[in-house]
Amino acid sequence: MIKILVIHGPNLDLLGSREQKLYGHLTLPEINTQIRKMAQKTKVGVEIFQSNDEGKLVSKIGKAKGKYQGLLINPAAYTHTSVALRDAILSAGIPTVEVHLSNIYCREEFRRHSFISDIALGQVVGFGPDSYLLGLEGLVNYLKREGSGP
Amino acid sequence: MIKILVIHGPNLDLLGSREQKLYGHLTLPEINTQIRKMAQKTKVGVEIFQSNDEGKLVSKIGKAKGKYQGLLINPAAYTHTSVALRDAILSAGIPTVEVHLSNIYCREEFRRHSFISDIALGQVVGFGPDSYLLGLEGLVNYLKREGSGP
Amino acid sequence: MIKILVIHGPNLDLLGSREQKLYGHLTLPEINTQIRKMAQKTKVGVEIFQSNDEGKLVSKIGKAKGKYQGLLINPAAYTHTSVALRDAILSAGIPTVEVHLSNIYCREEFRRHSFISDIALGQVVGFGPDSYLLGLEGLVNYLKREGSGP
Amino acid sequence: MIKILVIHGPNLDLLGSREQKLYGHLTLPEINTQIRKMAQKTKVGVEIFQSNDEGKLVSKIGKAKGKYQGLLINPAAYTHTSVALRDAILSAGIPTVEVHLSNIYCREEFRRHSFISDIALGQVVGFGPDSYLLGLEGLVNYLKREGSGP
Amino acid sequence: MIKILVIHGPNLDLLGSREQKLYGHLTLPEINTQIRKMAQKTKVGVEIFQSNDEGKLVSKIGKAKGKYQGLLINPAAYTHTSVALRDAILSAGIPTVEVHLSNIYCREEFRRHSFISDIALGQVVGFGPDSYLLGLEGLVNYLKREGSGP
Amino acid sequence: MIKILVIHGPNLDLLGSREQKLYGHLTLPEINTQIRKMAQKTKVGVEIFQSNDEGKLVSKIGKAKGKYQGLLINPAAYTHTSVALRDAILSAGIPTVEVHLSNIYCREEFRRHSFISDIALGQVVGFGPDSYLLGLEGLVNYLKREGSGP
Amino acid sequence: MIKILVIHGPNLDLLGSREQKLYGHLTLPEINTQIRKMAQKTKVGVEIFQSNDEGKLVSKIGKAKGKYQGLLINPAAYTHTSVALRDAILSAGIPTVEVHLSNIYCREEFRRHSFISDIALGQVVGFGPDSYLLGLEGLVNYLKREGSGP
Amino acid sequence: MIKILVIHGPNLDLLGSREQKLYGHLTLPEINTQIRKMAQKTKVGVEIFQSNDEGKLVSKIGKAKGKYQGLLINPAAYTHTSVALRDAILSAGIPTVEVHLSNIYCREEFRRHSFISDIALGQVVGFGPDSYLLGLEGLVNYLKREGSGP
Amino acid sequence: MIKILVIHGPNLDLLGSREQKLYGHLTLPEINTQIRKMAQKTKVGVEIFQSNDEGKLVSKIGKAKGKYQGLLINPAAYTHTSVALRDAILSAGIPTVEVHLSNIYCREEFRRHSFISDIALGQVVGFGPDSYLLGLEGLVNYLKREGSGP
Amino acid sequence: MIKILVIHGPNLDLLGSREQKLYGHLTLPEINTQIRKMAQKTKVGVEIFQSNDEGKLVSKIGKAKGKYQGLLINPAAYTHTSVALRDAILSAGIPTVEVHLSNIYCREEFRRHSFISDIALGQVVGFGPDSYLLGLEGLVNYLKREGSGP
Amino acid sequence: MIKILVIHGPNLDLLGSREQKLYGHLTLPEINTQIRKMAQKTKVGVEIFQSNDEGKLVSKIGKAKGKYQGLLINPAAYTHTSVALRDAILSAGIPTVEVHLSNIYCREEFRRHSFISDIALGQVVGFGPDSYLLGLEGLVNYLKREGSGP
Amino acid sequence: MIKILVIHGPNLDLLGSREQKLYGHLTLPEINTQIRKMAQKTKVGVEIFQSNDEGKLVSKIGKAKGKYQGLLINPAAYTHTSVALRDAILSAGIPTVEVHLSNIYCREEFRRHSFISDIALGQVVGFGPDSYLLGLEGLVNYLKREGSGP
Repeated sequence: MIKILVIHGPNLDLLGSREQKLYGHLTLPEINTQIRKMAQKTKVGVEIFQSNDEGKLVSKIGKAKGKYQGLLINPAAYTHTSVALRDAILSAGIPTVEVHLSNIYCREEFRRHSFISDIALGQVVGFGPDSYLLGLEGLVNYLKREGSGP
Repeated sequence: MIKILVIHGPNLDLLGSREQKLYGHLTLPEINTQIRKMAQKTKVGVEIFQSNDEGKLVSKIGKAKGKYQGLLINPAAYTHTSVALRDAILSAGIPTVEVHLSNIYCREEFRRHSFISDIALGQVVGFGPDSYLLGLEGLVNYLKREGSGP
Repeated sequence: MIKILVIHGPNLDLLGSREQKLYGHLTLPEINTQIRKMAQKTKVGVEIFQSNDEGKLVSKIGKAKGKYQGLLINPAAYTHTSVALRDAILSAGIPTVEVHLSNIYCREEFRRHSFISDIALGQVVGFGPDSYLLGLEGLVNYLKREGSGP
Repeated sequence: MIKILVIHGPNLDLLGSREQKLYGHLTLPEINTQIRKMAQKTKVGVEIFQSNDEGKLVSKIGKAKGKYQGLLINPAAYTHTSVALRDAILSAGIPTVEVHLSNIYCREEFRRHSFISDIALGQVVGFGPDSYLLGLEGLVNYLKREGSGP
Repeated sequence: MIKILVIHGPNLDLLGSREQKLYGHLTLPEINTQIRKMAQKTKVGVEIFQSNDEGKLVSKIGKAKGKYQGLLINPAAYTHTSVALRDAILSAGIPTVEVHLSNIYCREEFRRHSFISDIALGQVVGFGPDSYLLGLEGLVNYLKREGSGP
Repeated sequence: MIKILVIHGPNLDLLGSREQKLYGHLTLPEINTQIRKMAQKTKVGVEIFQSNDEGKLVSKIGKAKGKYQGLLINPAAYTHTSVALRDAILSAGIPTVEVHLSNIYCREEFRRHSFISDIALGQVVGFGPDSYLLGLEGLVNYLKREGSGP
Repeated sequence: MIKILVIHGPNLDLLGSREQKLYGHLTLPEINTQIRKMAQKTKVGVEIFQSNDEGKLVSKIGKAKGKYQGLLINPAAYTHTSVALRDAILSAGIPTVEVHLSNIYCREEFRRHSFISDIALGQVVGFGPDSYLLGLEGLVNYLKREGSGP
Repeated sequence: MIKILVIHGPNLDLLGSREQKLYGHLTLPEINTQIRKMAQKTKVGVEIFQSNDEGKLVSKIGKAKGKYQGLLINPAAYTHTSVALRDAILSAGIPTVEVHLSNIYCREEFRRHSFISDIALGQVVGFGPDSYLLGLEGLVNYLKREGSGP
Repeated sequence: MIKILVIHGPNLDLLGSREQKLYGHLTLPEINTQIRKMAQKTKVGVEIFQSNDEGKLVSKIGKAKGKYQGLLINPAAYTHTSVALRDAILSAGIPTVEVHLSNIYCREEFRRHSFISDIALGQVVGFGPDSYLLGLEGLVNYLKREGSGP
Repeated sequence: MIKILVIHGPNLDLLGSREQKLYGHLTLPEINTQIRKMAQKTKVGVEIFQSNDEGKLVSKIGKAKGKYQGLLINPAAYTHTSVALRDAILSAGIPTVEVHLSNIYCREEFRRHSFISDIALGQVVGFGPDSYLLGLEGLVNYLKREGSGP
Repeated sequence: MIKILVIHGPNLDLLGSREQKLYGHLTLPEINTQIRKMAQKTKVGVEIFQSNDEGKLVSKIGKAKGKYQGLLINPAAYTHTSVALRDAILSAGIPTVEVHLSNIYCREEFRRHSFISDIALGQVVGFGPDSYLLGLEGLVNYLKREGSGP
Repeated sequence: MIKILVIHGPNLDLLGSREQKLYGHLTLPEINTQIRKMAQKTKVGVEIFQSNDEGKLVSKIGKAKGKYQGLLINPAAYTHTSVALRDAILSAGIPTVEVHLSNIYCREEFRRHSFISDIALGQVVGFGPDSYLLGLEGLVNYLKREGSGP
């Protein structure tokens, strides 16, 4: 069975209380429940991991090779600043989909640049929690169609 | 019933023969068939329109107000150069989802800038024809949840 | 009698319904009526032309030489992107006044650059429909004072 | 009765002798006479003030609040360098029209940037002394239509 | 027999009357006659197409694949602004030579950038109508030497 | 009683031994003693936290909402690189004062940019350990005057 | 006794009436009263000077050497444009603290650059009138600790 | 007899006490004495004027036309910020030599740009008070050789 | 005996499996063995430390002062983003050599900038694991020649 | 008889062995033979000169005035770096055609800028050795049509 | 036996007398002696060449193909300005190591860019004469390991 | 006796015939005669050297140390491109004056940057051949006043 690693970046543990107008009122556990349901529906396994710590995210992704066939990641603030995360994804060498809850293109200028997008398979932006679900769907479709190797 | 306007920008009429490595081997009619199936599945109406002509695209979108509740657009090359398209979307004032077949972020530098993304609801990039289907799904979910006004 | 070509660029056919807060509630026919009245008052002829199509605008202006003594143009979105329009105006070689309904200097950064302004006689910006009337007045005064050749 | 403050920036006292090709052969008193006639015609009062001194201009405008309903300003060289003038206009908080005799967009690159234009109601550029008259007309029309408060 | 598609971009229909100092006094039909003579001399077929309309140019080039073995194009103003034209040429996938009548490198700064040059076989600039003839010669030599596939 | 969270960023644990010329000879515990005295004097509670770890700082601040009424932060090196810290402060949504021991404006160019300053209430820079005391004083005054909500 | 020169830059004479939301409702005389009280409390002398005139400010500061031991300055709009003020402060050669009422880092981009900050001892920004008091306190502490020479 | 206007910009009244390492220990009156001696030696008249006030400098230069045949100016800090001074010199329309005491090219980056140098006859930089004398000599030689008109 | 701290940055724990074409097939323990051999040969002590965590690297280096006489560091991805690492090295104040396995100058543009190189003694780039050995050799030679203090 | 100076810049002596994929397999003597044949065909004289030395190229071109009526130059690497070559061509003052073997627009970014192109009559790029022949043909046509003076 | 070409760029003939603080007190012959010793130790042949002349360096390197298996180069000032040197190295097509005596990253901004580094095997910077020895060692190790072809 | 090395850069051998409008009609030997007269008058020795060759200029200046007390240089085109010349002057370590015949600040943008000006004592620009004489006078005065060491 295809296994997907789902990564939530920094500050996403605060969802539901954090700036609801921008990020919605669902909490992270509620979003994770939706992700797991979608995984069941598309018959793939998921492991979900959140950390505020760049190093822990890097370590987690670095060990993904061989254990997971795909990576679904919301790198949050590290999208714009972390070359280490980029290198970890390059090391893992598995198809990666980048998602964002809010539309990063209508916010501060510095949010328009991503260190991840040019090494990702695809990007889903601005649909709130649906971004995860659409991204997962797209990733799973891709893996089923192409096989699960990079 | 919710009605969605689907817009294909310039050169997309050539899909299937055009640079298959980058854009895939499906033709535009084949993609449109998939879009219509998804529309039926999610119980919305779609009208599909392709043009190589910036002016015709502008006119089509400009008249969308009141006739459609949402806009799904692959602006193709005009993504990066057309303020007129942006203004047409602003005039229409309906929720808009921008999609791209290829991952525009791993191509030429000038493809990283979009005149549409900051006024769109969301963006789906890099999944090939699936970009349309995921984008449509996200747009319809949004319209059903929020109601169909902007 | 002096004849002036009046050009309305893309999306201006939507005036009155389009973003009224920014562009006002007058429709294009209503503005055209005001322009024609001002023309009568200043005793010049006007021909008015609107298109969403860059190519049609280029063709119209390209043929202006010898038929019109002046050009009053609101290039709208093409202000910021069309070298072809600039070249058409250079080809026509007649005194040109650029007008804008809204104050383009307090909007998005990309609206601060115009491909027309440095080859125009003058520019009137931000007065709503009055921009056309003031621009026409200025152009006619100029033509009467200088004669109508470039 | 509506009262308008008319401000002439640095070096405009030299008009008529200064670079006639660029600025025309009318002297400042001759232009002022035209402005006063236009004021009479449109039934508003004007006070006219010229200074080469950034501080004096700032002081004059700073005291405009409550005494004048509109500001017509040719900031000349200070257009491009004076944040203090911008702040004075923001403090006055009255509708402001920026005018320039010459077409600043076909001169040195640094003249393309204005510290005033994005806080002004509108801008009239390139018509020689007519820039003042058209700008005044536009400002008065605006004040009569909107009432005279900002 | 090798067949070449010759494309003239916007405003080139005005040649002969348009800014003669910059573009020369030959009309477009006169240039086309020279192109046809050169084609006869080098024993290739040519089809010649002019439009002011970006969309029409895109459509024409998009259909070139399989019908023509080479493309000779003077994109005129669209050189600097049209990603759609670039994409059409990429779709056509046939050897392309870019020509310009005037020396675009000694004019406005924005004319130094071409969206075509890096995907073209070669570029001929500044020889007036001879640019077409030299470009055609170079293209035909290339096709004869390399065979006519991309 | 108002409670303030005081955050010391990376390398500040080395104060007193680290580049004394730039940062002074006081150790962090000595500075903390001064901060606590000032807190007593102004009758507010303080909790003080230092970490070299971006993730730990993000987690600490993320949980501040509801527990503290204000944030006094010396983000040190993370000032210039951490969007995650910015997002944590935005999530906390409490009035924030940014302080720096040294004058960051007379050092390397990259120290002139702060990801925090535009979302902070205010900034105190260059007074050595006094920066903390003055910042705390300003923050407390603000909270007492405005009430302690953001 | 230590004597401090306090300088208020352009438009600060309008405080209280000028954009109260941004600058608060205290008038300049009221702020000066607070400054004088703080001076008494910390046992230093102050002389306070306001001008809208760059030249007068330059002259005042240029003569400060030997008469004052410190300079507290809110350069207002001249912060961003005046090299002359910078040179005057360099000439005076006395410890200088730069203060701003509003948070200049969350306003227009051009307000992020200061010609003063890299030659100042420190900077206090965003606390309203408290910026003066905190800045004065920091300056006096510095002078008492270091002695009053630069 | 040729008459030269000599202008000293802001802060130059402080010479001799101001940063002697950079500007030398001569006072302005001592430099003026040297200038007058050189004038006598080369048999030209000089009038010397210093002000810290941009407006006064502008007014002085604006009236130079017809009274002086040449302008020798050390614009000091206004070199880098004053378009008004540039415009005044353009208005005066007389040959102008720009001088600087210190080598402005080995100081802060912003001192490398001059609003005067491209409209001046020549520039003398870095020789201390000799810059004035060499600049005057060069200007007088020019005027004698070319005649004294612009 | 001279003691050297050897630091491996993020993702280097994956060497041998990670992108072998770019980084080679040696694992980190194998490289460490080579480093220890070289240390023995040059008669210095080494301590080796790897972490994916910016904060842990900062803490480790921050405590280096007095314990180690030199630092050999491959900052990997943090090279390009970590001011905190730079500050830690500045705090440690010991001679530092920066090494990279791959040639960072022929990869993505953002890898050309290092926050470490201008505060390092020297840099060795592109020799694979030999970069460490050459860097260590250079550092030890330096320390033996200069003595081991900074 | 018209005489043309043909200049080959640095490294062109290595043609045939140097990066054949980019520059072709013809040697410089073989290309020179083709140039001489074309010269005979068009009845002009040619002198051909190659040097790796910027100074020798400058000297050769500097003496061209009066001896040659046209210059055909492949400046190779000096295209992008040599102002001296530009100045030599300006001094020579004869019509100049710039040619390049490879398409410099699809290589490194720095090859997109030429110090020659804006002072040349025209440019031929990307046709391999044919670039010389087409450039020579264009230059000779120009000289015969315009006469041989600049 | 492997043969290495060692190139010293401009001004390196002055070593020992030239800015000793930056470049050390060893003369070039003394450094060459060290290089030859290292060559003997690693059993390779070296030829050493110094020139101040870009053209001579280009010619020397251009002829390296087939005669040498590796290139060790200190391009000195030409590092930052010579595309011709880059092209010569590309033509030679042999593994190249770039070395610098001083740390070019802590000097003027323009020294941070190298036209050589992205086409080199590796770079050694900042170790004084040791840079040559370490670079040679690295190059020889590489050639022995990979064989001596490019 | 003080000895000065006078250096003329590339293309200056063509003076008198080269672009007379820009550089005047005097030949280089005529200018050299004037320089020698001025040297006699100020009682210093001069050696004059011209070359088009960057390498020869570098070698000449590199050997200046100890033989000459000052350097007067017109680097011509190498002003803007030669780091090698800069390094040679730094190596020579003698007071240097940079002169230019034309006003480089009103020509092409790239002529505004000099690699020499920030390491020179002073600069004289725009006086034609007088630039040499004024520069020599300034240099000699400096050497006599300061002594002849740097």
